[in-house]
Amino acid sequence: MPDHIVSSYDNDLDRLRRLISEMGGIAEKMTDEASLALVRRDTGLAQSVIVADKRLDALQREIEEKSVLLIARRQPLAIDLRETISSIRVSGDLERIGDLAKNIAKRVLAISDEAQPQKIVQGVQHMSDLVQEQLKDVLDAYAGRDTKAAHDVWERDGAIDALYNSLFRELLTYMMEDPRNISFCTHLLFCAKNIERIGDHTTNIAETIQYLATGENPTGERPKNDASNYATVSPQGAAAESAPPGPSAA
Amino acid sequence: MPDHIVSSYDNDLDRLRRLISEMGGIAEKMTDEASLALVRRDTGLAQSVIVADKRLDALQREIEEKSVLLIARRQPLAIDLRETISSIRVSGDLERIGDLAKNIAKRVLAISDEAQPQKIVQGVQHMSDLVQEQLKDVLDAYAGRDTKAAHDVWERDGAIDALYNSLFRELLTYMMEDPRNISFCTHLLFCAKNIERIGDHTTNIAETIQYLATGENPTGERPKNDASNYATVSPQGAAAESAPPGPSAA
Repeated sequence: MPDHIVSSYDNDLDRLRRLISEMGGIAEKMTDEASLALVRRDTGLAQSVIVADKRLDALQREIEEKSVLLIARRQPLAIDLRETISSIRVSGDLERIGDLAKNIAKRVLAISDEAQPQKIVQGVQHMSDLVQEQLKDVLDAYAGRDTKAAHDVWERDGAIDALYNSLFRELLTYMMEDPRNISFCTHLLFCAKNIERIGDHTTNIAETIQYLATGENPTGERPKNDASNYATVSPQGAAAESAPPGPSAA
Repeated sequence: MPDHIVSSYDNDLDRLRRLISEMGGIAEKMTDEASLALVRRDTGLAQSVIVADKRLDALQREIEEKSVLLIARRQPLAIDLRETISSIRVSGDLERIGDLAKNIAKRVLAISDEAQPQKIVQGVQHMSDLVQEQLKDVLDAYAGRDTKAAHDVWERDGAIDALYNSLFRELLTYMMEDPRNISFCTHLLFCAKNIERIGDHTTNIAETIQYLATGENPTGERPKNDASNYATVSPQGAAAESAPPGPSAA
């Protein structure tokens, strides 16, 4: 194969890598800022997260188009084909992460006037910190084609699920204690769920890194802790005093 | 181009179409049965929805692989290239629809022991009926390459969002009226959100049909009614009597 074709093909792959890296940076920043906006009730910051999502959507379309054109023009094989498919997959996950961060930002705008016990928000913040670390690590692993680091990220997703579950129960308890907490806590529940799903997408990216290196999609079960994701909590104490006994907790 | 190549290429495309059609059938059945399981509290039916999702995941991987191989081997142009890209996109949306139906089914298992006022469930059922109709219509439109029918589906998504918003407020009100409703209504809120998101994926498919026909991705804003998606409700009446005044409703 003449040198100039190889080099032009390498340029195409390089360009894809740079676009993915740009998407990764934006998705990280959006996740970080959405969570900060929630804690600080910063509606201006929330607005800027919402605006940033447009760029992420445009980049995803661009990566998808460039990848498909590259496959059609160069008919890459083996590792090069996997690299191109991986670009499509990772850009899809990053685009979804942006949507989830945007959704959190929209909720910040919705609840900016509500009384918010900061203690409840801290649990969400802690979960968000963990997820941001996962996202950073998985993007580094993708850039460095580091399957070991990717596997570490993959394994740590269980911890985020466990945190989500305890937060879910805590938020339900707050709601039962005082009906004035219900509206705010409901939005916080959805924020927590969105952060947990950002974690799922980092796990997807970790699996794509595995596929990129080996050509195999991971078939084992994820280290999920989602059994109590579907927990129920029954009201106790003051809030339920005037009511007949509720159903028992699962 | 020799006939046998053209015919083999057509066979490839036909096979993709059949796989998408199989995925569509499974996604429709899962959406239908998840909602039935919720209304009837049928844990057996919920289990079968959870099992069906594995087949959907496998089909998505198969479609993705076949599509990429087809692009690499045949270097299709224009409409044929778009058909292949559309297969990847639609199979991705159908896989997500399956995930969302599975998530509803898991919640049916979680709340099967809870007291459930049927009236609350009916609102979710009504929303689900609308979404199922959308899904059926968009799959028919995809099979028939019918851009007009696809546009109709696209326009109707706003009605589902509006229904979700009113259900969201209604569920919050139930939670404020009686803390024993909180646990059950929270799961129902997530079920309603999942159904709304199934609606979003049918809208994605409608946009893919547009892209397939014209090569253009729709750029206009979706007819979203999601402003009040982020509504808040404040407690009134008995539940809040012993508490100081809550924040006002947005």
